Amino acid sequence: MSGSLVIVGIGPGKPELMTPATQAALARASDVVGYGPYLARLPECSDQRRHASDNRVELERARLALSLAGAGRDVVVVSGGDPGVFAMAATVFEALEAGDPAWRALDIRVEPGVTAMLAAAAEAGAPLGGDFCAISLSDNLKSWRTIERRLAAAAEADFVIALYNPASKARPHQLVLAFELLRQRKAADTVVLFVRAAGTSEACVVGTTLGAADATRADMRTLVIVGARATRRIGRWVYTPRGEESVAL
Amino acid sequence: MSGSLVIVGIGPGKPELMTPATQAALARASDVVGYGPYLARLPECSDQRRHASDNRVELERARLALSLAGAGRDVVVVSGGDPGVFAMAATVFEALEAGDPAWRALDIRVEPGVTAMLAAAAEAGAPLGGDFCAISLSDNLKSWRTIERRLAAAAEADFVIALYNPASKARPHQLVLAFELLRQRKAADTVVLFVRAAGTSEACVVGTTLGAADATRADMRTLVIVGARATRRIGRWVYTPRGEESVAL
Repeated sequence: MSGSLVIVGIGPGKPELMTPATQAALARASDVVGYGPYLARLPECSDQRRHASDNRVELERARLALSLAGAGRDVVVVSGGDPGVFAMAATVFEALEAGDPAWRALDIRVEPGVTAMLAAAAEAGAPLGGDFCAISLSDNLKSWRTIERRLAAAAEADFVIALYNPASKARPHQLVLAFELLRQRKAADTVVLFVRAAGTSEACVVGTTLGAADATRADMRTLVIVGARATRRIGRWVYTPRGEESVAL
Repeated sequence: MSGSLVIVGIGPGKPELMTPATQAALARASDVVGYGPYLARLPECSDQRRHASDNRVELERARLALSLAGAGRDVVVVSGGDPGVFAMAATVFEALEAGDPAWRALDIRVEPGVTAMLAAAAEAGAPLGGDFCAISLSDNLKSWRTIERRLAAAAEADFVIALYNPASKARPHQLVLAFELLRQRKAADTVVLFVRAAGTSEACVVGTTLGAADATRADMRTLVIVGARATRRIGRWVYTPRGEESVAL
């Protein structure tokens, strides 16, 4: 097969946070496949076909991309942030495994990007300065019990916790439940950050504590960071020191 | 104070993985401060001062950067990867907190970058496709007991685990101990990836299993990824499916 497939991340929003490698892949593509609002962020290329799809149809979108590449097109699949973090890369490999065996001979590449958690951390200072974990609160594809187990483990081992997909219109209650669980395991004065639209010109950071955190403040564009014991404020900044000898587990 | 300080990440290695925002900050700097090998990667600017320092003097380097900015210079502090992940941003805020109170009025900004874990994942496919954590195995600044607690929690809650700083000449044994701990808690056929020099032209991915993984294969340029139960291979690729209903905890 002569087609190609590049799975890219366009970063959190600002064009200057998209890597030149991703820009180059987009410029060379004959076809660009992705969620509509992500495609809308990209500059138009006159002789390029765009295949915009809705949210929640990731597997269908991945199959379309593989089919186009199988037909000899040079396809780019677009994710926000980094394609490997709660985004399209895993979906494409799922579709590859389940699909036409001929697709396995395709020229496939993944280009990394700046994921939301890193952009959110940069807006706030350096809250991810120690060991950390990333958990998606969406239970569309995994059980809530699995999410609870991971939240509890992360709290008990004192990871900084980055929460992706903290809430949506269809799921307003997950973050409420997550905060309840964390309050049973972490101090009330633990630093909590709501970072909305990180890495865009509308970025907004609200710092609070676990005791006072209001889950209804989060929406689909919010990344929530719950600090470790050592996470602290210095003026308008929040950071987690690298050393934690004084915070024995 | 009229000086400025931008803390940037230059990405994993290839210039095309450095964001335009970081490139622009570097082009505007009067002074660039960083670990020697990172500075050596950057194009020379004729009227720019470079302050190269050794490894393991992070706090001293942060103080120098703040002093220069305090003296009115436009300073960029350089990290590899992303500045907020086991890198200079936390160190700068540590130095800010402990240092001259006047520094708190400085114009400070953090620019995110592509951290090693994302570049390594992209080389291998999408191993970070589910919930994941990042743990530095260096015990220069935290106790080995803390690291063990985090490894155990990550294994028990079935996170994909990215291990930064898995080994160095001064610390050859940490990864051996980490694999021993993980083998007691995870299946022998768990996917393990050694990704060396990710995001550079010398990138090399070796996939194996936890049962067979040889810790001596890792060096300072290696990022080790230990899969979750659902992490799997498809041809030369490794990915973690988004859905895990079939992998109940």
